[in-house]
Amino acid sequence: MKSDLDGLMQARNLDALLVTGPGRHNPAMVYLTGGANLSEAELIKKRGAEPVLFYNLMEREEAALTGLETKNLGDYHLEFLIKKFDGDLAKALAARYQNMLADLSIRSGRVGIYGISDPGSAYAVFSELSKAAPGLELVGEPETSVLLEAMRTKDEAEVARIRRMGQITVEVVAATVDFVSTHKVRDRVLIGPEGSPLTVADVKSRINLWLAERGAENPEGTIFAVASEAAVPHSMGRDADFLRTGVPIVFDIFPCEAGGGYFYDLTRTWCLGYAPDEVYAVYKDVLDVYNQIVQELRPGELCKNYQQRACELFERRGHMTVRNDASARQGYVHGLGHGVGLNIHERPSFAGHAGEDDHFVPGVVFTIEPGLYYPELNLGVRLENTFWMRPDGQFEKLVDFPMDLVLPLE
Amino acid sequence: MKSDLDGLMQARNLDALLVTGPGRHNPAMVYLTGGANLSEAELIKKRGAEPVLFYNLMEREEAALTGLETKNLGDYHLEFLIKKFDGDLAKALAARYQNMLADLSIRSGRVGIYGISDPGSAYAVFSELSKAAPGLELVGEPETSVLLEAMRTKDEAEVARIRRMGQITVEVVAATVDFVSTHKVRDRVLIGPEGSPLTVADVKSRINLWLAERGAENPEGTIFAVASEAAVPHSMGRDADFLRTGVPIVFDIFPCEAGGGYFYDLTRTWCLGYAPDEVYAVYKDVLDVYNQIVQELRPGELCKNYQQRACELFERRGHMTVRNDASARQGYVHGLGHGVGLNIHERPSFAGHAGEDDHFVPGVVFTIEPGLYYPELNLGVRLENTFWMRPDGQFEKLVDFPMDLVLPLE
Repeated sequence: MKSDLDGLMQARNLDALLVTGPGRHNPAMVYLTGGANLSEAELIKKRGAEPVLFYNLMEREEAALTGLETKNLGDYHLEFLIKKFDGDLAKALAARYQNMLADLSIRSGRVGIYGISDPGSAYAVFSELSKAAPGLELVGEPETSVLLEAMRTKDEAEVARIRRMGQITVEVVAATVDFVSTHKVRDRVLIGPEGSPLTVADVKSRINLWLAERGAENPEGTIFAVASEAAVPHSMGRDADFLRTGVPIVFDIFPCEAGGGYFYDLTRTWCLGYAPDEVYAVYKDVLDVYNQIVQELRPGELCKNYQQRACELFERRGHMTVRNDASARQGYVHGLGHGVGLNIHERPSFAGHAGEDDHFVPGVVFTIEPGLYYPELNLGVRLENTFWMRPDGQFEKLVDFPMDLVLPLE
Repeated sequence: MKSDLDGLMQARNLDALLVTGPGRHNPAMVYLTGGANLSEAELIKKRGAEPVLFYNLMEREEAALTGLETKNLGDYHLEFLIKKFDGDLAKALAARYQNMLADLSIRSGRVGIYGISDPGSAYAVFSELSKAAPGLELVGEPETSVLLEAMRTKDEAEVARIRRMGQITVEVVAATVDFVSTHKVRDRVLIGPEGSPLTVADVKSRINLWLAERGAENPEGTIFAVASEAAVPHSMGRDADFLRTGVPIVFDIFPCEAGGGYFYDLTRTWCLGYAPDEVYAVYKDVLDVYNQIVQELRPGELCKNYQQRACELFERRGHMTVRNDASARQGYVHGLGHGVGLNIHERPSFAGHAGEDDHFVPGVVFTIEPGLYYPELNLGVRLENTFWMRPDGQFEKLVDFPMDLVLPLE
């Protein structure tokens, strides 16, 4: 967690962190500032010291709200530097960074670089900085940055913010149930009060509205995928699709605090009115694996072992899994879960190269989301909740909501 | 505009463009794909050829919706490359880029790099690519990229999307007027039906809702700034502030298409119920300068000349301007306008080093937004509309809305 950051910097031999980019929807910046309405900012944190935030003059009031020490970027005279370097903006920005770092007495050592930027600009500017300040070693961490490592566990204030997003999420899911279930049915299609079919777009626009009302947003969209779309794990759903009785819908909702803060992640699979036997059978397998996995969660265990375990449980029920075939398109074709925080996907990791040593420690917040997909049967089922491992070693589902397959129509 | 891109690449001697990052809220990617729900993608455009979109397997359906040629990133075997380079992800990603470029027969030449990424990762990965493929010259364009240069002018389809956002914007501003004006007043403070004071947070949550209902979002927030906050050009407004009669409010709203598409930008300044003489006098100066500037817009003229002209007009009325003092905090303290498109601020530019040769040509879409700020008087006024220079040389305000200072209460 954040209080570990200096120790983690020490372990990676990092003398300072440099974070660049907007104040919102920029996890590295939000993590160190708390979130601020800054269009562009720079932040430097020396190991063992509080961060210093560099703002553009017009945003001085917003910068001050962070409570951090602040400095005016205008005092670094970019226009003068541009002239000095004959209009070469990359050289001028590099010189400005050099001066900003020097003002914090950082003239040598290893400086990690994070945030959000245009990749070509970053390559150009930091290449120039590296040439201009050979005493500095500029470090990129494409795998797991020291910030992502710190974010792997959350303090109680962070968990409270994630849980609050969870409460908003289930309010919106409940509103979706109420909205959908009061529609009439004609020829197996749900029909609105004016007699026109209910579409995925209609449902999504309500969801956006209910999120906005509650101070949340869904910058990465919402999955509301019907039938053949449900059978493709990350199809967002087709706007024009109708809602039909007896056809599975995968509803995966992952909103964050407005302005780009903490996320929550929850998935339900619904059949409206009734569920055909083959859908129920697949749903039952997913639910059983979900329940079995949740029951088996243990402090100190490796996360990736649970992905193996999920594969084993699905295979025992006769399904193909990514363990048999990494490019499988039917059966169990994705990872079991992921960490959730300022990024919708972060550490701990349940699969893949990064985070293969991740295990359950106090403060991790993560999803468990087994699923089965059969594109040829127009059939997909996924069930997902978000959990926290508490300081006392207990695993706690952050919010609750029924996992029933059949959504009865009134 | 987009059809100029190959010519602009030729002029900059760029053989290919490489765009990385998410499919949404990533102007370079949205520009070349039209916008796609991809969490992460890579796109390569050779000069004279259509772009090729590289997707992650789980997002193949979303990638296909773009209509572009697509390739599966899975076919480039990142896990194998990570092992080959002993776990060095930067080297592995560099090798993958090298293979992707080679598949499009790009083994030498100048490759521009754009999009959104972690700056440290970009620095690390492209430094490795540069070492591994010395025949490639990797180009960062921190000033005005070839894509921003193309975006400087819009085709009619783009203007239609911006105008549509303008229509949504004025609907939401009209709804705000209706909402605010029906409140009662007690001791000069607006009071809701339950007797509690109306706050900036109340107004903003309605604005978010009305935007969401219309398929828009405001990823950069909305400025609704009262009194002393209005006197700071880019304060977003304080959530807890009350709305009071006779006190200026700067309302600057700049939503974009949901998912991160085209923006619109509009500002009004209101006094509720009545306007004190000193507020009206400042408003009148801003309105007069606005009207004078709009009247003087001419095809072919340099944009920056209008910033000079605005300074001249304000100085003639006795106000300080950024021309007298670049760090001024009172008077006319910012630029006159900016281009609007997939970025809320883009070319053409009215001030600063970049875009100093920008002039009014067919297809530019831009704001005109003079303002005056007097922090010691708790007073700020800004008025803004968005314009398009049409192919016939006429300047057209994209949508209309009254610019009155006083917002009468019912």
